[in-house]
Amino acid sequence: MQLKVPEHQVAGHIAKDGKPGPLVDDKGRFFKPLQGDSRGEIEVKFYESFSSNTEVPEHIHRYFPVYHGTQAVEGSDGAAMMVLENLLAEYTKPSVMDVKMGSRTWYPDASEEYIQKCLKKDTGTTTVSSGFRISGFEVYDHKESSFWKPERKLLRGLDVDGARLTLRKFVSSNSLSDTGSKPDSAFASSVYGGSHGILTQLLELKTWFENQTLYHFNSCSILMVYENESILKGNDDDARPQVKLVDFAHVLDGNGVIDHNFLGGLCSFINFIREILQSPDESADS
Amino acid sequence: MQLKVPEHQVAGHIAKDGKPGPLVDDKGRFFKPLQGDSRGEIEVKFYESFSSNTEVPEHIHRYFPVYHGTQAVEGSDGAAMMVLENLLAEYTKPSVMDVKMGSRTWYPDASEEYIQKCLKKDTGTTTVSSGFRISGFEVYDHKESSFWKPERKLLRGLDVDGARLTLRKFVSSNSLSDTGSKPDSAFASSVYGGSHGILTQLLELKTWFENQTLYHFNSCSILMVYENESILKGNDDDARPQVKLVDFAHVLDGNGVIDHNFLGGLCSFINFIREILQSPDESADS
Repeated sequence: MQLKVPEHQVAGHIAKDGKPGPLVDDKGRFFKPLQGDSRGEIEVKFYESFSSNTEVPEHIHRYFPVYHGTQAVEGSDGAAMMVLENLLAEYTKPSVMDVKMGSRTWYPDASEEYIQKCLKKDTGTTTVSSGFRISGFEVYDHKESSFWKPERKLLRGLDVDGARLTLRKFVSSNSLSDTGSKPDSAFASSVYGGSHGILTQLLELKTWFENQTLYHFNSCSILMVYENESILKGNDDDARPQVKLVDFAHVLDGNGVIDHNFLGGLCSFINFIREILQSPDESADS
Repeated sequence: MQLKVPEHQVAGHIAKDGKPGPLVDDKGRFFKPLQGDSRGEIEVKFYESFSSNTEVPEHIHRYFPVYHGTQAVEGSDGAAMMVLENLLAEYTKPSVMDVKMGSRTWYPDASEEYIQKCLKKDTGTTTVSSGFRISGFEVYDHKESSFWKPERKLLRGLDVDGARLTLRKFVSSNSLSDTGSKPDSAFASSVYGGSHGILTQLLELKTWFENQTLYHFNSCSILMVYENESILKGNDDDARPQVKLVDFAHVLDGNGVIDHNFLGGLCSFINFIREILQSPDESADS
């Protein structure tokens, strides 16, 4: 089995301090190391519960990565890894964005120290103000014919208007590193809009979240991806925009209550996307 | 002008330490003292902005108390009071519940001290877990032919199942002080259900909150009221259930972002009400 470091990972843990990072194979699988502090255990437990949960409708299952169990991986000190669907396997030139959902990333039973640590990040980013924060993205820059990936520090510093602008940049054809130019939102209608676009998918998820009381997706992200290759070939309608939920290391039992934290953030995020669709030509701060 | 202390106030400030409490007249008006710490000022500013705001549709305006300006009131040291619609004026034997909405009662720009104070209350009640907390209620007890109003301490101690049970008690005909008896939810369909019931009204509010970016209703309450007099006369369908938003001392400008905190809590609250309507005979903890 040939494993390599994924090309377009935008958020989450990477190989560091001797600990293995995620890997991919050429058969469309993504190998994710189990995180310590019981987080890895919680994520495995979630995938096992979720993948066999018949109470979750089929059209919702497709918003989650397919789970293939855990596996000891050679070359990673034989550490156990989760084997997941590689969400980017079918994309040649993907633009990817990771959006951490919810107006809080902590949860009621967490330790005081953990709550305060999260709270500081949540108030310092758009999490509290907007119900979500952009925690990573990589965009194919059509002007420069290369990928552009901002530093994590830059993303952490985004305010509400910065988040608006970034969501426009994600679907724009002009140069992205050039901070002076206004993003043209050229691909908004083919990525965010349309009957198979991001907005349609988000609305389908929203309907489920309005009723589901099975899980609380604390500190979970929405991953958005689309294909630039087809756009380069002049075929905007084949951008194959996809929404997937990722990162389940803090998922808890819903105990009969809906996940109002995720849902509130999702509704806010939907409104940001809808605004861009309604006025793609407008600048973000007007 | 004859002013008296309101009979059925279930939450909020009362006369204490020489400070005036709210008063009512016999013309359907409610006099609310301005709170100190700029809170009174914010609430007056909100009512003035809201009552003349033509961006708010007419069918939404009716979920808010009518505002008649401020007035110096004799006998209250001439202190200025807000003159509002008395929401209970048209009810003879009202059952009333005050539900503070949102999974947090603080807001981004508040002082660190205020945030920590709110956070403690929010995690200690159902605010964080359920997205709302029951902060007051008074129910007409049909068995005892009298009003029953639990102590504030009892309400503060409610967990999720306790909140579920209380929402059933609110629409039950059996004795409420008797903790052994299971609430029968006898009036659920005529109060929560129906084309003019609480659920329909909450859903109408939800639709507005999914789009409105004008105001953030921090620490705001939903007041629910219905008439027991008509039920006593065997006319359940004339219970006149009403939903109103109250307490605007912490309302802030929405700055183009929806109020995902209120909306998330509202969606959760809607689910609690819907569950009771779907299985009125079930006990709350089954």
